[in-house]
Amino acid sequence: MCQLLGMNCNVPTDICFSFEGFRTRGGLTDVHKDGWGIAFFEGPGCRVFIDVEPSAQSPVAELVRHYPIRSKNVIAHIRKATQGRIALENTHPFQRELWGRYWIFAHNGNLKNFAPILDGSFMPVGDTDSELAFCWLLQRLRVEFGHAMPLRKPMFEFLTDITHEIAAHGEFNFLLSNGNCLYAHCGSKLAYIVRQAPFATAHLKDQDVSVDFSEVTSADDRVTLVATLPLTDNEDWITMTPGTLTLFHDGLPVMNASTA
Amino acid sequence: MCQLLGMNCNVPTDICFSFEGFRTRGGLTDVHKDGWGIAFFEGPGCRVFIDVEPSAQSPVAELVRHYPIRSKNVIAHIRKATQGRIALENTHPFQRELWGRYWIFAHNGNLKNFAPILDGSFMPVGDTDSELAFCWLLQRLRVEFGHAMPLRKPMFEFLTDITHEIAAHGEFNFLLSNGNCLYAHCGSKLAYIVRQAPFATAHLKDQDVSVDFSEVTSADDRVTLVATLPLTDNEDWITMTPGTLTLFHDGLPVMNASTA
Repeated sequence: MCQLLGMNCNVPTDICFSFEGFRTRGGLTDVHKDGWGIAFFEGPGCRVFIDVEPSAQSPVAELVRHYPIRSKNVIAHIRKATQGRIALENTHPFQRELWGRYWIFAHNGNLKNFAPILDGSFMPVGDTDSELAFCWLLQRLRVEFGHAMPLRKPMFEFLTDITHEIAAHGEFNFLLSNGNCLYAHCGSKLAYIVRQAPFATAHLKDQDVSVDFSEVTSADDRVTLVATLPLTDNEDWITMTPGTLTLFHDGLPVMNASTA
Repeated sequence: MCQLLGMNCNVPTDICFSFEGFRTRGGLTDVHKDGWGIAFFEGPGCRVFIDVEPSAQSPVAELVRHYPIRSKNVIAHIRKATQGRIALENTHPFQRELWGRYWIFAHNGNLKNFAPILDGSFMPVGDTDSELAFCWLLQRLRVEFGHAMPLRKPMFEFLTDITHEIAAHGEFNFLLSNGNCLYAHCGSKLAYIVRQAPFATAHLKDQDVSVDFSEVTSADDRVTLVATLPLTDNEDWITMTPGTLTLFHDGLPVMNASTA
């Protein structure tokens, strides 16, 4: 299994504090040592850092930890390989372009007997069930909506349907973003927290590190963090209901639907 | 204008030495300070580092300089913006997936009155002539060859034709790779060197740094470097003829055609 971390905000925010705790689960406080990755949207642009080294030791993770990249949408993943060998092409998050936007996807779970028929518009490079699910999902979106990005509501409804179909094949927790909003599907395990004024001090679960958010934020800032397991031990994370797709925008959950 | 750097080898090789000289042209020894990027293939997997900071000062460039990523195909670019503002989405190299392989593209030049009709299969995210040319090129390849990667020869011939068409719109130096080989088009300015046994000492043009390749290579290693301008001042770089597309594989030029 793997672990997911996502962030969605109303102003570009750095994820250094959360990443600090998350990365130690890749080989130090937990067993997810088969590679890791993180994608930052900056406007429509996106940069993806991936590495097959455990995130607790990776020089690239060291950079990410110290280089405060400010982003409104971030998706990170640490891997414990289930399907697909340890290789760069099997390392999440995955990136594709659709409708002139980059799309980023990371998956935690395991899909069985999942062999959708691809039309060639999006093909996996590696051999994970995760990348296959991502390609299938994008193909379905393109077939459904043609060559222009749909409005938020029909897009969310259609994504709920596809997610329901794919989730029939097994555990399917995922994070998906196009840089504008963050889709989070809780198949079995996912939690989130909205941080907004009045900001308080948060303390990491995986390391004895605290940050007083009131010192580093403005009154209007709003930040949602989504993670497989809560990252802090003194805040009230909301456990998501298995079989739920949630859309986050500007740091708030704005749509919610059952995929069960 | 921009500068290009490419590497194609028969064994995975690190590009640290060449990158050391190249990066200083991004704001230190030369004016290309509007962002930079580098893509490394590791098998079919690929990682792309891009940054809008000048490469001479970028913390990401600092990482790349010290972290010896071994790769058979590398494409790097430092940008002096002509079309498209300074933004992450306009930073080369660009990445897309076609036929289940990642494709990486970087361009030096300026295309005018270039407005091909895109069918939506590959759409630019930013607003550069370069990303538009890349999308158009991939669309043409998909239309021509369908959903399976063609053999090397028909692929090279068709690419020569498309390049000829695009180059009619202006300066079009580019590097393109799918991780297996490197296509280099000299529209106006590009040079290359093949390093192989007996290896000697090379000295950078942009900095007083030397490396004795005989100490860090094996007898069978073969490395081609392609760059807008030679990176060393004590080796015989081959100046490519304007209007020539060259295919490099396993560190050697294996095909060559006129695009004039």
